[in-house]
Order: sequence, then C-alpha cells, then structure tokens
Amino acid sequence: MELKKISFASDNNSGIHPTILHAIEQSNNGHCFAYGKDPITQRGEMAIKKEFGQDTEVFFVFNGTGANVLAVKSVVRSWQSVICAGISHLNEDECGAAEMAVGCKLIPLTEKNGKISVEQIADHLTWLGDEHRAQPKLVSITQPTEYGTLYTPEEINELAVFCKQNNLLLHMDGARIANAAVALSLSLRASTRDLGVDILSFGGTKNGMLMGEAVLFFTPGLTTETKYFRKQNMQLFSKMRFVGAQFDAYLNNNLWQHNASHSNQMASILFEQIKDVPNIQFPLPVQANAVFAIIPTLAIERLQQEFPFYVFNEKTNLIRWMCSFDTQKEDVIHFASRIRETMLSL
Amino acid sequence: MELKKISFASDNNSGIHPTILHAIEQSNNGHCFAYGKDPITQRGEMAIKKEFGQDTEVFFVFNGTGANVLAVKSVVRSWQSVICAGISHLNEDECGAAEMAVGCKLIPLTEKNGKISVEQIADHLTWLGDEHRAQPKLVSITQPTEYGTLYTPEEINELAVFCKQNNLLLHMDGARIANAAVALSLSLRASTRDLGVDILSFGGTKNGMLMGEAVLFFTPGLTTETKYFRKQNMQLFSKMRFVGAQFDAYLNNNLWQHNASHSNQMASILFEQIKDVPNIQFPLPVQANAVFAIIPTLAIERLQQEFPFYVFNEKTNLIRWMCSFDTQKEDVIHFASRIRETMLSL
Amino acid sequence: MELKKISFASDNNSGIHPTILHAIEQSNNGHCFAYGKDPITQRGEMAIKKEFGQDTEVFFVFNGTGANVLAVKSVVRSWQSVICAGISHLNEDECGAAEMAVGCKLIPLTEKNGKISVEQIADHLTWLGDEHRAQPKLVSITQPTEYGTLYTPEEINELAVFCKQNNLLLHMDGARIANAAVALSLSLRASTRDLGVDILSFGGTKNGMLMGEAVLFFTPGLTTETKYFRKQNMQLFSKMRFVGAQFDAYLNNNLWQHNASHSNQMASILFEQIKDVPNIQFPLPVQANAVFAIIPTLAIERLQQEFPFYVFNEKTNLIRWMCSFDTQKEDVIHFASRIRETMLSL
Amino acid sequence: MELKKISFASDNNSGIHPTILHAIEQSNNGHCFAYGKDPITQRGEMAIKKEFGQDTEVFFVFNGTGANVLAVKSVVRSWQSVICAGISHLNEDECGAAEMAVGCKLIPLTEKNGKISVEQIADHLTWLGDEHRAQPKLVSITQPTEYGTLYTPEEINELAVFCKQNNLLLHMDGARIANAAVALSLSLRASTRDLGVDILSFGGTKNGMLMGEAVLFFTPGLTTETKYFRKQNMQLFSKMRFVGAQFDAYLNNNLWQHNASHSNQMASILFEQIKDVPNIQFPLPVQANAVFAIIPTLAIERLQQEFPFYVFNEKTNLIRWMCSFDTQKEDVIHFASRIRETMLSL
Repeated sequence: MELKKISFASDNNSGIHPTILHAIEQSNNGHCFAYGKDPITQRGEMAIKKEFGQDTEVFFVFNGTGANVLAVKSVVRSWQSVICAGISHLNEDECGAAEMAVGCKLIPLTEKNGKISVEQIADHLTWLGDEHRAQPKLVSITQPTEYGTLYTPEEINELAVFCKQNNLLLHMDGARIANAAVALSLSLRASTRDLGVDILSFGGTKNGMLMGEAVLFFTPGLTTETKYFRKQNMQLFSKMRFVGAQFDAYLNNNLWQHNASHSNQMASILFEQIKDVPNIQFPLPVQANAVFAIIPTLAIERLQQEFPFYVFNEKTNLIRWMCSFDTQKEDVIHFASRIRETMLSL
Repeated sequence: MELKKISFASDNNSGIHPTILHAIEQSNNGHCFAYGKDPITQRGEMAIKKEFGQDTEVFFVFNGTGANVLAVKSVVRSWQSVICAGISHLNEDECGAAEMAVGCKLIPLTEKNGKISVEQIADHLTWLGDEHRAQPKLVSITQPTEYGTLYTPEEINELAVFCKQNNLLLHMDGARIANAAVALSLSLRASTRDLGVDILSFGGTKNGMLMGEAVLFFTPGLTTETKYFRKQNMQLFSKMRFVGAQFDAYLNNNLWQHNASHSNQMASILFEQIKDVPNIQFPLPVQANAVFAIIPTLAIERLQQEFPFYVFNEKTNLIRWMCSFDTQKEDVIHFASRIRETMLSL
Repeated sequence: MELKKISFASDNNSGIHPTILHAIEQSNNGHCFAYGKDPITQRGEMAIKKEFGQDTEVFFVFNGTGANVLAVKSVVRSWQSVICAGISHLNEDECGAAEMAVGCKLIPLTEKNGKISVEQIADHLTWLGDEHRAQPKLVSITQPTEYGTLYTPEEINELAVFCKQNNLLLHMDGARIANAAVALSLSLRASTRDLGVDILSFGGTKNGMLMGEAVLFFTPGLTTETKYFRKQNMQLFSKMRFVGAQFDAYLNNNLWQHNASHSNQMASILFEQIKDVPNIQFPLPVQANAVFAIIPTLAIERLQQEFPFYVFNEKTNLIRWMCSFDTQKEDVIHFASRIRETMLSL
Repeated sequence: MELKKISFASDNNSGIHPTILHAIEQSNNGHCFAYGKDPITQRGEMAIKKEFGQDTEVFFVFNGTGANVLAVKSVVRSWQSVICAGISHLNEDECGAAEMAVGCKLIPLTEKNGKISVEQIADHLTWLGDEHRAQPKLVSITQPTEYGTLYTPEEINELAVFCKQNNLLLHMDGARIANAAVALSLSLRASTRDLGVDILSFGGTKNGMLMGEAVLFFTPGLTTETKYFRKQNMQLFSKMRFVGAQFDAYLNNNLWQHNASHSNQMASILFEQIKDVPNIQFPLPVQANAVFAIIPTLAIERLQQEFPFYVFNEKTNLIRWMCSFDTQKEDVIHFASRIRETMLSL
C-alpha cells in the first residue's frame, strides 16, 4: 500500500512530529553510555517526573505491548490474575503476550461503552486464599478506552479506592492518555496518578513520537524486579537516549497537549459534520480522537476504497475512524462530505 | 555521565549515522499502514533479500536480544535445548530471556578464543529420544565472537555440516556480522547463508543504525509461527517503516561495509600503535573492531578516568577497547599514546 | 477434620475401591523398569486400548490438572487459545496452570447449564491469521459438566463437526466420564471418541482409584511432543506400574461402570427424596452423580454441621451434593430426611 | 520386560515396602476432605516436623521432579539463576522442567566426584545487580550425589555458610537423603537442616514408598507462594491422605533408616565382593547404595543380558549398579560372582 496523506485507520499510521525528529537529531552527538545510563535519558526521565511527581519510577520500553506486559510482570505472579475488559488491548490485541511472559490468567469482563465497573470486579473476588483459583492482583483499565470513550475522573477514583480496599493494584493502559487528559481538561498527573492509578503505561508513539513508551510506577515498592524484567522482556534499548530525547521534547513543549488537542478536535469536527447523516448510527459517544459508527456494508466498501479505516466488528458493521496529530481539517471536511455522499447514494 | 566524543566502551555507545537519520526523515511523510504493511518496510525487506537471496524470510525486531530470542523461539520447543558458548550474548547477557520466553534449556560450552567446536557439540548429543533429557535442537554461534575473534568460513561450514547431519539447526548471532564480513572480505551472504547458517540475527544498531535488527531465515519451513511469536515477544513495531527505511539505507549504499571497514580499521590501528607497549598482554587476536588486552589494575583506573571502556574479567584484568563507525583516527592515536604513557608511568 | 463415613462434599473425598487396592498389592512383586517401561503399565494401556480402540495413544499422569494441561500443551502453542466454559475446571480450578505451563490464552465462555455451544465458539473465530490476536486452536468441554449436567451425544457431535470444519481440536475433560457414559447408556468409547472427541482426559481418581489419570489421543499426529511435555510437566511417575495396575483393574472388571452407576443412582435417589421439599430450588437437572440446589443460608449452616458439602456460589446459595462410589443408600436416605427436617424447621 | 526379582538398574525399580502398603490400607476408611485438609495428611506432616523441627514447612508433591521444581519456583524468579552440578537431576534429568516452569537460568558446574565447591560458585557471583545478567539466587546440591558419593557435613556447612554470606539460598535434592543420613550416622535433621540447608526435597519413593515426596522449608519466609505454585505445577494430590499415611509410616517406625541401611549395606557387600576383580575400575568411592564401575563393553553386554543396569557414560563405559531396600544379600553375592566370572572370561 502506498503512503496516503489521508487515512483514518489509526493514529499509529502517522509519522513522527517534526519537534520529535528534531530532538532525535539534537541528541545524535558523540558517544554516551548505552542502556539508559546517559544524560539525555535522564532528561527524559526528569521531564516525566516533573509532570507526574518526583518520586515517579520511570522505565522506558519500545512499544505499548512491551509497556503493558512490563507493568503486569512487575507486580503479578503466575498464580495471580489480571481483571480487565475483554476488549482491552492487553487481553485482545497482544497475542497472549501477558500469558506467555507472566504466565498469569487474564479475566476478561464484558465492557459497557468500553468501561468496566467496581461491581464486575467484585464478582471475581471470591475463593480468595484458595489455591485452586488464580488470585486477582491487578485491575487494568484503558483510558481512553478501546472504544474511544472516557472514564470520568470519579469512575477512575472509585475503581482505585475499591482496589486499595481489596488489595488490588490499578493499572492504566495510557497508550492515548494525552487524548484523555486533554478531553478532561486535566493535567497528565491529575488524570492518572492523582485519581489513584498505581501504574501507568504512558504512551507516546500514537501521539507523534517515533517510538517509545514509558511504564510509570506511582506507588512505592513495586519495581524491585522491573529492571531485570525489562531486559528479559527484550525491552531494554541500547541507544536509549533517543527515547529519552523524545519524551523530553514531548513533555517540555506541551507537545503532548498540542497534538492530542488537535486529534481530539479533528474527531469532534468529523462527528459534527456527519452526525445528522441518515443511516449512520453512533453507538458510542465521541470523547477523544476516535469516531465509532455503524454503517451499511456497501458504504464500508465504497469508503474504504478511498480512505483506509478499520471495521471493528464484521457482524455489526461497527467501524472506527481515528484522527491523528497530523490529520488536517480540510481532509476531515472532505472525508465527511464523502461519507455524506456515500450514504445518500446507497 | 556526559556525552563523550571519545569512548572505547562499546559500539552501541555511538549515535546514528547521518545517512540513516536522513533515511528516517525521508520516510516521515504522511500516513501508511502500521506493523510492517507499508511500502517502506517492504523496501527494507527487499534490500535484505537482494543481499541474502530472494527467498530469505525477514522479521524486523527492536533489538539484539529480541532478535536472538525470536530466532530461538521460532524453532526450539521448551523440551529442547540450545547449545552455545557460555560467554555468548544469548547465554550471558540477556538476563535469561530465552529461558523465560521459550522455556528451553541452554547448554553453555567453554569457548576457545570465543569459539565452540563440533567436538564439543557432539559430546552433548547423547540420550537422544530420552524424555528425561532436554533434546538438543539448535546450535548458536556469534560472529564475530564476544571476544572480537572470527570463526573462519571453514569452521562455520564444518559446524553447519555437522548440524545438518545431526538434525540440528545453526543460528548465528550477527549483531556485528558486518564487521566479520568485511574482515573476511566476503559479502554478507557469503559469510552467513552460503556457509550453511539457517538463521541469522542480523544486527544494525551497533554499526550506525538508530535501532532495529532483523531475524533472517534462510532455510524453508522455519517461520510458521514466527509472526505470532514476534508480536507475543513484544517486538512488533507499529511505525515499522522507520526500521525498514534504515535497513534500506544501510544496505543499498554499502553503508554497512563502509562503517564496518572503518571500525575494524580503527581497532587495527589501535592494536598496531600499542602492540609493543610493555606490560600489555593481548590474549586474543584482533580480528574485527575490538581490542582485548590485559593490563595492570592501576592502568585500568587511570585510563578509565579519561576514556570509558569495560573490564571484562575483574580477576584477570581482561579489558575491551571497542571501536565504532564514528571513532576518529586521531582519537585512536591519542588514546594509544595515552595508553603508552600510562603503562610506562606505572 | 476427622474422617467421616458420610460426606457429600466430593467424590474425591472417598478412598480407594477394594478392587483397586487389591490390584496394587498384586503388582507389588519384585523389580521392573521404571517410568512405564514395564509389563504392568502395558497391561493398563492395553485395557484402555481395548476400550477406546487399539490406535489410542495413552499417557498416564498423576492427576486431573496434570491431564488437562498435558492435553492442552500437546496441541496448543503459546500464541494460540483454548475456548472453554468459564466455570470449567481447566479455567477456574487449576490456579492458572495452563497459562503457566503452556503460556496460552484461555477464552472463557458463559455456560448454560454448564454447557457451551457452537454459536458461542463461532463468535471467537475472528481475526484469524492476524498476529495481534491469540488464535483459537482447541475447544475444551467437560462431561459431565461442572454442574453435573450432560451434553447429549448430538451436542458433542455437533461441537466435534464444527471443530473439524474450523481447524480446531476438541478436548474433553472426562474426570467423571464414567458417570456420563453410564448415564447415557453408552460405552466409554461411544461417549467420547465416537462422537468426535480428539483428546480425552480420562479420569479414575474420582471413581474409586487411588490416583492416576490418562490422557488419551484418538486423532493421529498429536503426540509428537507429549512424552517430553509429560516429563517436563512433572507428571512422569517412576513406579508407573501402580497406575497401570489400577487402570487394568478399573476397566477389565467393568469396575468403572459399577462404581459410576452406583454414584449416579445415589444422586438420583437423593433428588427423588427431596424434590418436593419446600424452599429448595433445583436450578440444574440431576443427570450424573451430583445434585445442585439452592437453599437458605440458615439451612446451609445447619446441614454443614453434620454433613460436609460445598457452597458453589455464596451469592446465590447454590450448593452441591456429590455422591460417590462408596456412598451408601441408607446414608442418602438419612441425609434426605435431615434435609427435609431442616427445611421444615426454618 | 518381565518383572525381575534381581535388578541393579535403580532403586525406583523396586516396589512398595509392606509397611507402607499396610499404612495405605489402614487409611482407606471412609471419606475425608481432599487436597490435604484431612487428619491423615496432618499425621504425615507431624511425623516430618517431629523429625526435622516443629517449624518445618511441609509441602507434599507427587515425585522428585515435582519436588525440585517446587523448591526452585518458591524462591527463584525468572530473572534469577540456580547454580548446580551439571550432572544434577535438576539440570540433566528433568527435561528442562525448571526452565519451563520457573523460566530461570540454570548454571551447570563441572562436578568433582559428583560435588560442587564454594570456589566454583564464587566464580559466578559477578555482575551482581547488572540487569543484563541472570542473578544467582539458589545453590542446589544433591546428597548423596548422582554418583553415589557424599558431601561431608563440613562441606555442606561450608556451602551453607557461603550461601548465607552471599545472599543465596541452599537447596538439597534429597531424593535419597535417607541413604546419606544412614551412611553419615546422622539423623535426617542433622544431615540437612542443621548443616544450614534452607530447602530440602525429601524423597521417599526410592526408599520403599509407592510415591510421594515432600518439599521441606526450614528457613522462614520462603513459602508465601508455595501452595499456589504446587497447584499450578500440577502437584496437588486430591487423595492426599495416602501420601500422608506413607510418610507417617516411613518415619515413625524408622523405616527410612532400616531400608536405607539395608540398601547401603548391599552396595557395600557388592563392592567388597568385586573390588579385587581384574579389569574393573572404581572411579568413585562407594558411599551410599550405588556402585559405579568401568568395565569393558563386552562385559556390559553379557551382564545386562542377565541383570538390568544402566550405562552412565557410553564413551567411558561408566556403569552404575544400584541397590534397593529389597535387594537380597544372596542376589548380591550371586551377581558379584557373575561379575567375577564374566570379567575373568573376557
């Protein structure tokens, strides 16, 4: 497939934001120790600590799956379990990486608008201490969810309080956390740590980085083994400075905010442009940078010839249109008009 | 630690070669499908196939550990074993990643000048078919070895023939294979596949890339599961095009050769400059881009204040001076003179 | 807790049937090779082959969890998944053994009367060939189910046909398969292999044996690695003859049938005696050797003081009364009358 | 192969001691809770605690591999390593079970008379805290060794002291610990716990039991996860009382001592009878119940026609003659005379 200027397939179909690329170039100067023992990696860590709190423990990894699995592996043993949404990336889109690398059980819950609730988790807190049952240890949520929806701060806090009361840890898959923070008008810290999240997979790739994610531990005492697991999980980058430099640039210029604001806005515009088009259903609220819709098969086929995007559910014809930091307003308008035309022509 | 212009610690302490960085920039143009389904990744694959043969199966991964483990996991089951040098990266420098991710046994052999022999492997081909014993399946060698030495083409071919006769596969950890090929005046293909190697971890990071390695399968039928294992091993890069672009640039301009020639030459110059210095021993031949030496503790301490490098064996004072694609001749000359002065001043 | 003559907790609370114990004694005569290479183990295997077909491949293991995990591990890779009922022993009662030992994903389905359906499985056959998703490979059902109910032969056959059509294998957890065969008036073979089951966990412990289960493979080509996995899974018994002797005795005297008939009959009598007692609900049909009921908390407490049994669901007060090969009719009558009294006294 | 009255193949080729079988029969009386929550299992645990100390933590498992792996898994994480003799059962005879179930690295040392030393271990205590290296956590020794030799109490104590000083734990594979204790004229406790051993795989199967081993933890704080790992490792026996009963009988009647004394004595007699036979070499001292010898190939072939035994090393013709609790003196005398005749007839 050729490079397309206009695609609504995924925010990871985009490239590198110029500021990020510039930061990489600026760091490409001479030798420094590998594997993170260098001043540029340190700058990246400091930028993260400035944002999330000085006592945040930071572990850079290569990608989102690497981040999620390292988060789980750091705190979950093979005889324990992770409670998460069935549709979560951790459960459904990582080819069983957690089961392979941690050996633990995932307990998939049926989500509602992408979200899971305290009541659902409580149902699985039975047979505690019984060696026949995998013992729940971690709850993992995604913000924004895989359906582009948002947990409210209150919902996250409720989950966090419940977890603490029940000796569970709370992990957030924040591959797109910037989009959530912007949508909620909160800082990165206020939308994660301050709500009671223990561990965050802090993503950058989908919001303008070349690659690089960070696993952030806010609760003390969870990382005794993490550095070994990162190496064992094949996630220790030798030329780590080039991840550090990206995070430094990403945070210090509010680039995260700028980019996420933009992609959220593009999704919002797209939705506004098409919300009254006949024969489209919107089963999910548009709250971040994705628009989910249900359209006829014929419309899917016609639109996909011009614009790449994914069908999420072939039975229900649920499709996803994802906006990115580099999605242009005129392209959204154009796309919206093509949607309208297509739907009207059916 | 600050950035140093002059370091002999490792070739992965270096940065990105300008040609590579340029290729990344050139690929940063619009959207394309993620996870390798894009034309730029394809260009990288084609460059590799041109070099190693059109039927080569190519799997890009993030780093060297990821490459080695994916190679092993693709062909070895948990009840089988891998025979390798005790000092191999696979055995000693990956924090047990193969045991964790594959669950198999590694059988570490005592190397001689970094190399293992057919006779040593043969000693472990006992109790075949006996379910009490892990069954040997793969032999893994490193070229150049962790001691900077080279297997001769004949030695590799002998290993390969033996492996085929004994139903074993031969893997080569080629994190620095470019340095070996250049030193042997052979093409990449002639120094690997044509000698009977079944699977190659083809490294680029240590020779000028930002990051990115490729696992190459030359023997048909070995990759039925590899794409799943790559994902599960957290090695599937979403913005894969930026690895493809690097390999494309690395191979099509003979950059691999140019860079490896240079670093080999720097090591050679360093050795020539200091080979007659008193009180230095050279227990290993200088054949690629590393110089191994044994020097007094006091000399280690004094030299390390100025130039970063590693002590390989604290008992024997075996140290390693590694040259890189960006090591400058004047720096080598300067370093050599400092070594001489230091040794004479003891 | 003291030994009780009367317990309805589980059929594995019972001891060893005298015929089984006698067989062990008779085999305790001199030396023979360990690990199954002896004539008594062979007799056990021959008894199984006579029952299930001469080409059945037989692997003895220690216990039910060992059998299920060996079945899964023999045919499922870490990147594949197993579809099963959420309440299945494999999913819920083995402390995540399959995830640990195979590294694969389990996909738990919501059962209906303990059973899963072709439609439910079909829902998970999406994204085939997509490396982001664990790929379904095995369907596992339990017969009789964990709720003491039975799949009809037609239902099993429908599942088997569907599996074959969709490149899936069908495993049956037959920890109590004797109870099912007897209830269906079928031979062991007719209730398993002849319905299309590929792999059977063939249990004996719950029906009068000391210990010992067998994994039976009916479909050719599935056991290339099984003997190695059995050893690696810590399931290879040195004095294997004492399992072989038990299976020999269990099958050759129709002991399996006699014992299972008895325990089924006891459950049936219990149900008949209490089915009209007020305030008891029977949410599940009584089809094998278990009676499931819902009774008030107070009744649970009072009855448990006298008779051990398990509460399956503390929220719904679902309890299980399990009959065994050595459950006596007078004890059942006595228990039934105590249930009646207790319920009337509330 | 038929049952043989006379075999020198292995002590696990023997059957069940009558006292053990009697204990099983005596426990076969009515129902009791499964999985160890019964008074007979408790009796077995109490017998062990009486012998080894009241604070000993006891976990029954099925077999020796199950015991060793549970010991390792309880205290070693995947990023850590186990240092042991290359010839140890754990390393060589368990088909890589530890690597599969724990995911950790084993570091095999070259033994001397079956034994490893503090100096050898010390050589591997390098790069501590470096995430590139698997970190040593456990030392595992076998007593008596796989070569039928004994560590002296002083040697074990030296290992234990070294381990404590270096933050390592000491595990002893005591599959035949009774033979060692008897040979050293020490109690079971004095030959294990009192010498500083932290964890013992306490074997019974090779010394007269039907099956059943126990993992004993002497050092507090090591078993937080053990019960879950036992279940997950498929080592939790439902009718556990029948293991408890065996250990009770094994210890309370000094049966362990009686049996081990006997088998040691038989090995001693065998050795005495043949030590002056020409053309036999005895490369290893006879210290427990095994005689190791080197004899010509022709002698091996002729003797094996009459008496089963194992060739340990086909290159060196090292063979093992193992005596058991039920080896008869007249059979030993007879065997010795046949060895003499065979050797003289060559």
